[in-house]
Order: sequence, then structure tokens, then C-alpha cells
Amino acid sequence: MMEFIIQTQQRDELQEITSLVQSAVSQSRVREGIVVVQSPHTTLAITANEHVDADVARDLIGHLKDLVPQKSTFRHRENNSDSHIKVSLVGPSLSLIVRDGQICLGTWQGIFACEFDGPRQRRIWVEVVGRY
Amino acid sequence: MMEFIIQTQQRDELQEITSLVQSAVSQSRVREGIVVVQSPHTTLAITANEHVDADVARDLIGHLKDLVPQKSTFRHRENNSDSHIKVSLVGPSLSLIVRDGQICLGTWQGIFACEFDGPRQRRIWVEVVGRY
Amino acid sequence: MMEFIIQTQQRDELQEITSLVQSAVSQSRVREGIVVVQSPHTTLAITANEHVDADVARDLIGHLKDLVPQKSTFRHRENNSDSHIKVSLVGPSLSLIVRDGQICLGTWQGIFACEFDGPRQRRIWVEVVGRY
Repeated sequence: MMEFIIQTQQRDELQEITSLVQSAVSQSRVREGIVVVQSPHTTLAITANEHVDADVARDLIGHLKDLVPQKSTFRHRENNSDSHIKVSLVGPSLSLIVRDGQICLGTWQGIFACEFDGPRQRRIWVEVVGRY
Repeated sequence: MMEFIIQTQQRDELQEITSLVQSAVSQSRVREGIVVVQSPHTTLAITANEHVDADVARDLIGHLKDLVPQKSTFRHRENNSDSHIKVSLVGPSLSLIVRDGQICLGTWQGIFACEFDGPRQRRIWVEVVGRY
Repeated sequence: MMEFIIQTQQRDELQEITSLVQSAVSQSRVREGIVVVQSPHTTLAITANEHVDADVARDLIGHLKDLVPQKSTFRHRENNSDSHIKVSLVGPSLSLIVRDGQICLGTWQGIFACEFDGPRQRRIWVEVVGRY
């Protein structure tokens, strides 16, 4: 298992981590298999989505705020229930395919850490299984 | 593949299954790898989220009810389309990392079965792949 | 890694791909392990849900349109931000368990490609890891 650290800048933010995940995959020396990217945090999710036009990430963040607002009626006292809920909607981990030592991604796909309660320093965990 | 059984008590409920999943991981004897926790049901999802303050699970359940109500305009006749929709939003399975024979989880993370059409007896499937 | 091609017919559509994924699993000769089904597209998601009553898929598609409409206020200029957002909610990939060479699925479960910006020709990637 490999870990890397990122620093987020906003409360809600998508930060691309594709090259960091690729570094971990390369380090594992697995040629054909599966990579799991996991957030060990309960207010940070992982997804893959378009990484060419940054407006896609902005629209995603913005619409998630509409779907899950910071309601005063939530019971959890830290006032970040919205952040936790978004993580279970987007997902705390992501599985992708590895081929010839490279993460398999479509032309427009990048891997993103989805910060929902930043700015914070965050850990990302990566594990790769398969054939060497 | 290992299976365990849980009994849910409410129509909508998050039930923590971390120790049951850890038992399956220990039984597999895999030391370093990946665990997949899968729901074989179409109205039960799997997620990881905060397990210390139970209000987080309550807020998640409550807000999902707001986002996906039991609408009379749904066409599926069993009157549980909301349950099915919530499963595809939260996810029918979850992949996590295993290190030194232990599920890798952050300080606040627990694994939850998300019941959306209970109370029912439910099966949970676990598979582990990696190095022994 | 195996790839297959599907043709979708609507802008929003769930197309069942269970038998195609099973073919890839059989071809891999893995008997016990994990299969990852991945969309290389940023407007196509993967899920497992009920495949017996097609109204479940219709209700899912319809309700996702309500939750994430094609808003004119989105910034991404291709007018398909709703499609991208739905992918991060449903998920760009899905992990399932393989046992005795078969995908483990519950009685009511099928695997679906979730088209959110069709009709298009789409690729689906499948990788299997485990014991032969």
C-alpha cells in the first residue's frame, strides 16, 4: 500500500491526482491488474471524470452543493453532514484497470480527489494487485 | 468468497459491518491486497463513512429520503423504486485496501450496509485478492 | 484487459451488459477473484441493479433527470454537465466478486451500462484478478 499527501485549498474542490496515482502504479511494478484508490477520510471522495475542461469539476461541485446543502436541521454537530453525505454519493474509493503498467483511462478521464470539507491536508491510499 | 448474514430493523438503516468484513479478511489469510464487499441485493448498498457519531448515518439516511422520496409516479409496481435508486447512488459494492492482514480504514471510517427496503435478513459477500 | 463495444439508443438509457461481462470473465480463466467493469467515458457509468422489471431502470433514469437537470446555468459549454455529474454519482466503474468462474450476482441483479449522453457507440473495459 502506498500513500501520498495532497493539500486542498477550498471547502469544496476537485483536485486531480492522476499522475500521483500513476506513480504509485509504476512503483508497484504490476503490469496487468487492478488499482484501488482509497480516501481514508470521511469527507473526501474519489472519482474519475473529465479533466480537460475544468468547468466540469466546477459544475459537479456546484450541483452537489445544491443537492446536499449545509442544512441547519442535520443532527451531526460538526456542521459537516453535507460533506459526509457527498462522500457516500460519490464514493470513498475507486477501482480502475491497469494495463502494461499504466492506469487505463479514457481520453477525457482523470482521477480526482473530491474535497468536501477543506481546506485540509489529505492522505490518499493506493494498492495494486495483478500480474508482474 | 465468504458470506455473512445480517438482520436489519428499519426500512432505511445503516448497519456497521466492519468487524464482520475484518473476520472475512482474516480468514482469507491475504496479507496485502484488496477486499471487495458486495451486496447481492438490489435494495441494499455498501459504503464507508463516519462510524463514531451515529448522527452521521442518521443524516445520510434522512437526506437520501429527501433526495429520493417514495413517489407514487414511479412505474415499478413494488413501490420501492426509491430503494433501488439509492443503491445505484451509494453503490452495490465497495473496494478497500488490505495491509498486513487488516482492512485499511481511516480513524473515523467504518463499513456500512445501507438498508433501503427493510427490515430484512440480508447477505453480504466478501472476496479478498492479493499476496499471502 | 478486455474491451467490448455497445451501441446505445437514447440520450439516457440503462443497457444490460451482464452476459458480455460474463464472457470476459470466462475468457480470463480466473476461477476465484474480482472483476472490475470500467467505463472509459466521462458520460457513461456502470452499476448493478434489478434487471427483471425494466421499470426499475426507467425510474432510475427518470429520477436522475430530476435530480440533475440540464441546467442552462452550468458553465461547461458542451451542455452535458448533467451527464458528467450523473457519472460521478453512479460511478465510472464497478467491482464484483467472481466465484467458480462466474460473476457473483444476486437473483435480481444485472450489470448495466448507464448512458447519460447518447445515443453513442461505447466501449466497456473488463479486468479480472484472482486465482486460476
